[in-house]
Amino acid sequence: MDERESSESPIQGKKSKSKTARKPKETVLKQKSPAEFFAENKNIAGFDNPGKSLYTTVRELVENALDSAESISKLPVVEVTIEEIKKSKFNSMIGLVDRERVDAALYDDYETEKAREKRLAKEARTQEIQAKNATLGKKVKETPASKGIKGRGEASFYRVTCKDNGKGMPHDDIPNMFGRVLSGTKYGLKQTRGKFGLGAKMALIWSKMSTGLPIEISSSMKNQSYITFCRLDIDIHKNIPHVHLHEKRENKEFWHGAEIQVVIEGNWTTYRSKILHYMRQMAVITPYAQFQFKFVSDAPDKNVTVRFARRTDVMPPIPLETKHHPSSVDLLLIKRLITETSKQNLLQFLQHEFVNISKPHAERLIGEMGPDFSSKMAVKSLTSQQVVRIHQLFRQAKFDDPSGHCLSPAGEYNLRLGIIKELNPDMVATYSGSAQVFEGHPFIVEAGVSIGGKDVKQGLNIFRFANRIPLLFEQGADVVTRTALKRINWSNYKINQIQDKIGVFVSIVSTKIPFKGTGKEYIGDDITEIASAVKVRSF
Amino acid sequence: MDERESSESPIQGKKSKSKTARKPKETVLKQKSPAEFFAENKNIAGFDNPGKSLYTTVRELVENALDSAESISKLPVVEVTIEEIKKSKFNSMIGLVDRERVDAALYDDYETEKAREKRLAKEARTQEIQAKNATLGKKVKETPASKGIKGRGEASFYRVTCKDNGKGMPHDDIPNMFGRVLSGTKYGLKQTRGKFGLGAKMALIWSKMSTGLPIEISSSMKNQSYITFCRLDIDIHKNIPHVHLHEKRENKEFWHGAEIQVVIEGNWTTYRSKILHYMRQMAVITPYAQFQFKFVSDAPDKNVTVRFARRTDVMPPIPLETKHHPSSVDLLLIKRLITETSKQNLLQFLQHEFVNISKPHAERLIGEMGPDFSSKMAVKSLTSQQVVRIHQLFRQAKFDDPSGHCLSPAGEYNLRLGIIKELNPDMVATYSGSAQVFEGHPFIVEAGVSIGGKDVKQGLNIFRFANRIPLLFEQGADVVTRTALKRINWSNYKINQIQDKIGVFVSIVSTKIPFKGTGKEYIGDDITEIASAVKVRSF
Repeated sequence: MDERESSESPIQGKKSKSKTARKPKETVLKQKSPAEFFAENKNIAGFDNPGKSLYTTVRELVENALDSAESISKLPVVEVTIEEIKKSKFNSMIGLVDRERVDAALYDDYETEKAREKRLAKEARTQEIQAKNATLGKKVKETPASKGIKGRGEASFYRVTCKDNGKGMPHDDIPNMFGRVLSGTKYGLKQTRGKFGLGAKMALIWSKMSTGLPIEISSSMKNQSYITFCRLDIDIHKNIPHVHLHEKRENKEFWHGAEIQVVIEGNWTTYRSKILHYMRQMAVITPYAQFQFKFVSDAPDKNVTVRFARRTDVMPPIPLETKHHPSSVDLLLIKRLITETSKQNLLQFLQHEFVNISKPHAERLIGEMGPDFSSKMAVKSLTSQQVVRIHQLFRQAKFDDPSGHCLSPAGEYNLRLGIIKELNPDMVATYSGSAQVFEGHPFIVEAGVSIGGKDVKQGLNIFRFANRIPLLFEQGADVVTRTALKRINWSNYKINQIQDKIGVFVSIVSTKIPFKGTGKEYIGDDITEIASAVKVRSF
Repeated sequence: MDERESSESPIQGKKSKSKTARKPKETVLKQKSPAEFFAENKNIAGFDNPGKSLYTTVRELVENALDSAESISKLPVVEVTIEEIKKSKFNSMIGLVDRERVDAALYDDYETEKAREKRLAKEARTQEIQAKNATLGKKVKETPASKGIKGRGEASFYRVTCKDNGKGMPHDDIPNMFGRVLSGTKYGLKQTRGKFGLGAKMALIWSKMSTGLPIEISSSMKNQSYITFCRLDIDIHKNIPHVHLHEKRENKEFWHGAEIQVVIEGNWTTYRSKILHYMRQMAVITPYAQFQFKFVSDAPDKNVTVRFARRTDVMPPIPLETKHHPSSVDLLLIKRLITETSKQNLLQFLQHEFVNISKPHAERLIGEMGPDFSSKMAVKSLTSQQVVRIHQLFRQAKFDDPSGHCLSPAGEYNLRLGIIKELNPDMVATYSGSAQVFEGHPFIVEAGVSIGGKDVKQGLNIFRFANRIPLLFEQGADVVTRTALKRINWSNYKINQIQDKIGVFVSIVSTKIPFKGTGKEYIGDDITEIASAVKVRSF
């Protein structure tokens, strides 16, 4: 390719200056709070649109509820209610006077008589032309489908309530737990349901964007004589909670747990089936929990009440916090561990802040690092270069794989039970893999296959779980799905992939879900092996 | 489904207590900085793994460079260099002494003589058994493929440099522009290439995680007599820049622009083709820019130099900052606009802070809001309820669609030119749609179709652009692709979808790219119409 001299004065394309377009101002650096960032990029957290936001709100609240009960080894009891709030009721909640339309022509759906006649006449003409063309054998030109209303249209509002029998929250902590983004407890290395530690905070941010109404929290901890009631919203710009009410109330029945209530814009119509699907899959993977789900509205035929009874008292052990594996750490993490450690010297640091480094092993590693390292040296005095040296050695040295002891899989028994409970199949086979490792993180894959079941659709029905929450949308899992489907020859096991009613369940737990990126292929290998093993066992 | 009483005391699953697993501590609330958040969730920003991180680093630097040149109406000249840095050179850069292995058995790839013999013997036995089974007609049991090294293995390092002839940066601003996450200039409503405003900051965070080496910036603004040189890294915990060096140097040639240099872990082997593909597509969509791309290493046969010459001096107008459309705003945004406006009363606020609200229209809207509203009322005294009322009316009232005047599409001429330049096809047809609107944001779709071309693969080759940057990975675009492919009957135009070499180019510009979520379907409709129009024109 030839090189040409760059021209100094470009020819500008035509630019019409409309009244509303302005020349860019002097660029000014602005500081944005994390809350603002997530408000503007809410799709990252699953709040793409009102319907999805309703779904994600339910998800986050349910998952927090389960975590909470399990953290005190209580068999979870979770009640979710979505109450549709009609516009007039919403207005009175806001303190707005309900108004009739006065200036009708202002509205988007307004059509003058004249316009209406015009439209009907046009539609008639179009039909006439198409009929003529058809008789002449000409191609029928497709009329572009009506684009409909470009804006968002009428909003739908919902009060979402989630009540649990879990741990509750310390009275004083509640405002910060809900009203401050990027503060949280889930920062150690542990298998967790939560993704960013945002959870209910995003629901609060979304409520602020769509309704302006605050969140309400009732909470009590075990043996607490009172119930905390807190009403708050979040100051987006400062990223701090704005408390409306924060008091202690009577707790006659010695209840413990939490009840969270938020009023948001949503869309039950478009996300109804996804929400119910989620609840159903939650019941499959968590058969030791009792769930109740209700949708309540003015229209009785729209209302839904679903109860998922507990089928077992066997609860998996709670996931345990663990130290990092040497092969999984980056420079920043090593430096952070150095900053936070209570250990004095390098030998103790290596031994205690990582898994699978015994004392003799640590001594050998220190020897290999070089003459400027010693067991007794103060770990907090390590230079940046020395940290890089440690990092390099961690990458190349051999360490035993991390065990899966810190993990908490669904459990083959519970997986089986959940599948049977929800699908009522003719046949079920389950399999639990041993702990594997990817990039220094342990993971366990469990799988199940079911055949038959009255309400099951024909063909392959895939159910995916990551850290024991159902995945309905994640792309990474699509790869798992495709891999599992394409690499298993179902006919080998006398299963007809199209006609038979097949349920395929894949559950992965890990301290870091290796779904995305290069981890996908790796999981693909495991799935094939496991599914093959499942097939061999059941037929 | 029946309801059963919840059992108070669950039966715990078996839990082996290993030495390394610990009981959860008392939960403590920790505050995390935005920089820490993005370090821990770097995959959101495209830094899933080292290879992807190399790709994304190149992308971000190139896009900043283009934005910078265009902002001062300069035909861009962008030079990118990726220099592979071997481990020994890297160590000396860090200040580490290069060491030979001493304790060989420490290493992951170490195999004792004994282990080697054992492995070879086992492989021999397996082959024997398989041969025997084959003769007996038994099914051959597949030996699981070797999983390979579980860790990350040996790291590869690269110095990535990007030089442009753009605007440069004010001397004093540079540390904050690179070393502080969530500060930026791209926060008005404008068509922008950048996504989160993270850009080079993520590259800096990644370099801190993978190499610990600082970023180096040289910059000069037009008619500045000096060149700023700044070396800095970021204090992740405090989210502030940590400046190593910040000085003014001679600028004899009156250069203006910026040169950014960062040393990161990457993977050229796995992402080479994606990076080159990206550069090539950039050249298609930006034919008024001159690009040079170089990969430099010790192995001459690995080295790559590609030059994309400028083919036109016609540069599209720069995107203009615009006000929001009433149908696109949420409560938070309205409140922010109220806080930031310089206008005193409600009438002026409505007229000037939104597009497509004329003075008479604003007066009618205020009338419709209710008796507690008036044109003269102080806008900053509006109550929360009143803001909700405005929001409701905005949702329901009719407004003219936002114009596309603030947008800057590639331009049919340039799109055509770019396609011809890169693909050398036999036939090209292009089409530029008029501005449409989605959720209150204007967007323009341009499309091109090419047939033939020496180096083009057979079948459909899809090229997607959002705000004039190539999309190689975005899922949303896959939907666009699928929609475009399935809904166009290529044979109607005598094109063989499998055999012919077809290039399909779709470029969308918007103040908010409606790729994800419900916007996808909508774009799907447009693509079909446009592609059909393209077909009709070219055959």
